[in-house]
Amino acid sequence: MTVQYLNDLVPGQLFGGAARIRIEPQRVADFAAEFDPQPFHLDAEAAKDTLFRGLAASGWQTAAVSMRLLVDSDFRPAGGIVGAGFEELRWPLPVRPGDVLRVESEVLDVRTSASRPQQGMVKLRTSTYNQDDQLVQLSVGNLVVQRRPA
Amino acid sequence: MTVQYLNDLVPGQLFGGAARIRIEPQRVADFAAEFDPQPFHLDAEAAKDTLFRGLAASGWQTAAVSMRLLVDSDFRPAGGIVGAGFEELRWPLPVRPGDVLRVESEVLDVRTSASRPQQGMVKLRTSTYNQDDQLVQLSVGNLVVQRRPA
Repeated sequence: MTVQYLNDLVPGQLFGGAARIRIEPQRVADFAAEFDPQPFHLDAEAAKDTLFRGLAASGWQTAAVSMRLLVDSDFRPAGGIVGAGFEELRWPLPVRPGDVLRVESEVLDVRTSASRPQQGMVKLRTSTYNQDDQLVQLSVGNLVVQRRPA
Repeated sequence: MTVQYLNDLVPGQLFGGAARIRIEPQRVADFAAEFDPQPFHLDAEAAKDTLFRGLAASGWQTAAVSMRLLVDSDFRPAGGIVGAGFEELRWPLPVRPGDVLRVESEVLDVRTSASRPQQGMVKLRTSTYNQDDQLVQLSVGNLVVQRRPA
């Protein structure tokens, strides 16, 4: 697949792809046990009495899976997907065990670096949807992307 | 350990703890293979020629480990650590295989919900440091916290 240099990216461009990841119930439990051991991610019975009203995947699992979906999408910036940081990351709805996720991305802004003319920053909004097309994660991040060599 | 209700939290409060997590080289490779399969996370030789100038953990692994350190800290909000979303998340320096991470948190703001008087929002800044006290992640997130029952 063709790599996109900074020069190839413009605001409004959309990226997606066929990649889907199913959130396996056992992986929800294992991820939570390692990184986010709280009752609403680990214990179906205890989760009923929490804000989530049932078992939910850790938001960090959703974030990590969304990254994998982005890497597997048709967004292929030169130098790889290197996040300098995010200015927004939220989870409007819980991800449930068994959900099937996909991502869509939109370029919001492209800037050349004044100090490092060989690279620049791309502001990318990435939306993660479940199998019912409900938004489960929204992120707006700034990525370092290489310019096409002269 | 005592749970903190919304009423117990005020801006300027600091939370920390003794928890430390070592970023095992094999875990860097496994996490990247599952969630962020890019050369700078997977292949020490290929990583030398990238922006990271050597193998680095995925930022999402750093984020997940930081969450685990926060769960294991003395910050114990009533209802658990439930992130509504982040308004900042960045990685000022790469995390290298073998690094040992810890977190410190500061309450930046506390607001009662107008529509749901039994809960409120706490803005928390969480800083993740390596063994040399270098900042490797900074996040500012909004958490849902329960008020003390009347």
